[in-house]
Amino acid sequence: MGSGPGRNGISRGLTQLPRRAIEQGTWCAVDDVAKRGDAALLEATARFDRLKLDPSSLRVSAAEIEAAVKACEPATLDALELARDRIETYHRRQLPKDERFTDPLGVELGWRYTAIESAGLYVPGGTAAYPSSVLMNAVPAKVAGVSRLVMVVPSPDGKLNPLVLAAAHLGGVTEIYRVGGAQAVAALAHGTATIAPVAKIVGPGNAYVAAAKRLVFGKVGIDMIAGPSEVLVIADDTGNADWIAADLLAQAEHDASAQSILITDSSRLAADVEKAVEAQLKTLPRAAIASASWADFGAVIMVKNLGDAIPLADAIAAEHVEIMTADPDALAAKIRNAGAVFLGPHTPEAIGDYVGGSNHVLPTARSARFSSGLSVHDFMKRTSILKCGPDQLRALGPAAMTLGKAEGLDAHSRSIGLRLNLS
Amino acid sequence: MGSGPGRNGISRGLTQLPRRAIEQGTWCAVDDVAKRGDAALLEATARFDRLKLDPSSLRVSAAEIEAAVKACEPATLDALELARDRIETYHRRQLPKDERFTDPLGVELGWRYTAIESAGLYVPGGTAAYPSSVLMNAVPAKVAGVSRLVMVVPSPDGKLNPLVLAAAHLGGVTEIYRVGGAQAVAALAHGTATIAPVAKIVGPGNAYVAAAKRLVFGKVGIDMIAGPSEVLVIADDTGNADWIAADLLAQAEHDASAQSILITDSSRLAADVEKAVEAQLKTLPRAAIASASWADFGAVIMVKNLGDAIPLADAIAAEHVEIMTADPDALAAKIRNAGAVFLGPHTPEAIGDYVGGSNHVLPTARSARFSSGLSVHDFMKRTSILKCGPDQLRALGPAAMTLGKAEGLDAHSRSIGLRLNLS
Repeated sequence: MGSGPGRNGISRGLTQLPRRAIEQGTWCAVDDVAKRGDAALLEATARFDRLKLDPSSLRVSAAEIEAAVKACEPATLDALELARDRIETYHRRQLPKDERFTDPLGVELGWRYTAIESAGLYVPGGTAAYPSSVLMNAVPAKVAGVSRLVMVVPSPDGKLNPLVLAAAHLGGVTEIYRVGGAQAVAALAHGTATIAPVAKIVGPGNAYVAAAKRLVFGKVGIDMIAGPSEVLVIADDTGNADWIAADLLAQAEHDASAQSILITDSSRLAADVEKAVEAQLKTLPRAAIASASWADFGAVIMVKNLGDAIPLADAIAAEHVEIMTADPDALAAKIRNAGAVFLGPHTPEAIGDYVGGSNHVLPTARSARFSSGLSVHDFMKRTSILKCGPDQLRALGPAAMTLGKAEGLDAHSRSIGLRLNLS
Repeated sequence: MGSGPGRNGISRGLTQLPRRAIEQGTWCAVDDVAKRGDAALLEATARFDRLKLDPSSLRVSAAEIEAAVKACEPATLDALELARDRIETYHRRQLPKDERFTDPLGVELGWRYTAIESAGLYVPGGTAAYPSSVLMNAVPAKVAGVSRLVMVVPSPDGKLNPLVLAAAHLGGVTEIYRVGGAQAVAALAHGTATIAPVAKIVGPGNAYVAAAKRLVFGKVGIDMIAGPSEVLVIADDTGNADWIAADLLAQAEHDASAQSILITDSSRLAADVEKAVEAQLKTLPRAAIASASWADFGAVIMVKNLGDAIPLADAIAAEHVEIMTADPDALAAKIRNAGAVFLGPHTPEAIGDYVGGSNHVLPTARSARFSSGLSVHDFMKRTSILKCGPDQLRALGPAAMTLGKAEGLDAHSRSIGLRLNLS
């Protein structure tokens, strides 16, 4: 339930506390907010964020948001605007189409997509909060047509990152509360007197936030549980060692538990990349984090030929896969499990983090085996449609009645039989 | 972790045990299988299903499946085949399309869908197991292209429902293990010496199964957590009271905690339906369950006009919505939250349960506010694609570098700057 910078700052991963202890603490925190509402939320915020609030000061005011926007560098605001526009353009293409068709029997079938009414966006606090992540979550929700988008962001010691507020403003988020941790997730899921509940909660957070999301799943929808960031680079002898080393370190600097892996069939490149990583680490501001990540989770894997990289890549199922080979498209087509692929030497993953247009919220910890990056689909849902007339019911009814009876569900059969004068 | 008929039989919902006690018991069961594999799985099966197995008898043999198919009534097999074919035709239309486009800057973008490699299908045991649910889960997985589809089904006292095995056979499932409960979910998620792990687990189960799925979520994908079944009927004075009563009872017979609601603007219909429910209950084999459900959770709601039904329907967000009014399509178009809609008097929900073609695995317990019925999408995932050349990197790179620096991620900026000779 903690939401101070130490816990919520830069880490996208789980802390090292035993998972069960975290889950039990989270249970109490969530339960308390579910039962006592604002009072529990305010007490937890005072305790973990060292911030005394009352219900009227929970919400970040329009004036604060305006002041935050003014406090940002114009160049940064321009870059955020470019990012927003490109994310919006990309995600508009994801809008799903409704379907309606009539089958040979005359049965009308189909489905219809609608936006989720309300969504909550969790944003980690601390100094290294990510305004880009605000856009990556808010823009798809807006494109989907979510009418109420609520943001919660912890404000340890009362501090808020102006860039996060500016990104919210650019993303069209106006309802923002200065709370974080499991208590904020609980408030979004259960609602309090001040914060109306939402239907779905998205966004990354620390281990307490992840545990709280897992706990409220079912009452509300949640997105994936985010783990530490990962990159897998697949390169042949055409690869530029300096560029590859820079990309490996760009992932490693996120978190000491981030993972960067190079798979190559070139022993020359493997050696050069290892040297380049060491050299570049020397001048990196976040060298402590990046070198811990590289030492503990980094790897250079030699393969006989690039074909051998494919089953390895599928087993690793990395969040990000960069392919720097003579024919990157051909190799990418053979990989099944990857959150995102970045093709060719001029597509560093950092472009995708910010301004490529695709979403940077991607499956981590091998979950690319079964899940996808955040998209417009995460903010919409599908209602299926079925329509029979008397003829269609006559054609299909008897088989349905047979199955109803076989399953011991006589009222199912009867609901059809009554209409067909068969019961 | 129980999987006997008393717990796993007909109930699609949670038991009345305190959720936390269930979760703690489940934690131990899952942890035990994760650590000790087959030994723990076999012990739990001996304890809860009163069935002593060894690793070689865990899997249901091809001969057993063949014998089960032969033991089924030909009419029932025909009905299951019709259901399978219609489910397959409907779900083929859901296959998502890949996308690839070049934006005005020359950046290549898009995404690609691939099937999940392996999926586990949980099937409840007991005498009232649902062969239709086997098809509803297996067919979309097959249509998606899942190459390994594993089924687990508890076999209390050694008994297996031949129809469930027949449905598995028709659905193309050949790898079946006679285990259930939290221990089966754990085996699918963590793998044992006998059961290779899967990437995603789907299918309904009792409270222990639901808790186990919640617990392994992240390590593997899961589908929704299923609750008791629900139907909302919206009808005007054109409604046939007997048919509506039959539909309300078809839902109520599932489970004492199932819910059936009628909303109408006709006091004549409201009174007639209440009478018809009482009359039909008298001759219903599952009258005890259905009358408990109707007494505790059933409702007839009068509205002044049908327009007032829309916000109510959205708040209830029912799994199934039947609309029997003069213009059902127009009313359906205004409802946002529903798992499935059934239009007109000749579309009883039971048709959708079996042979309509659409999926009967639908969001319950108000989760239609944020989630959709099971579909081909649940068995596929999307990899996003990004490709820049030197010109595109030059165009987008500076903005990305600005954002990387603003977020304190210098290695991100450097990975771009190195390529542009800017750092």
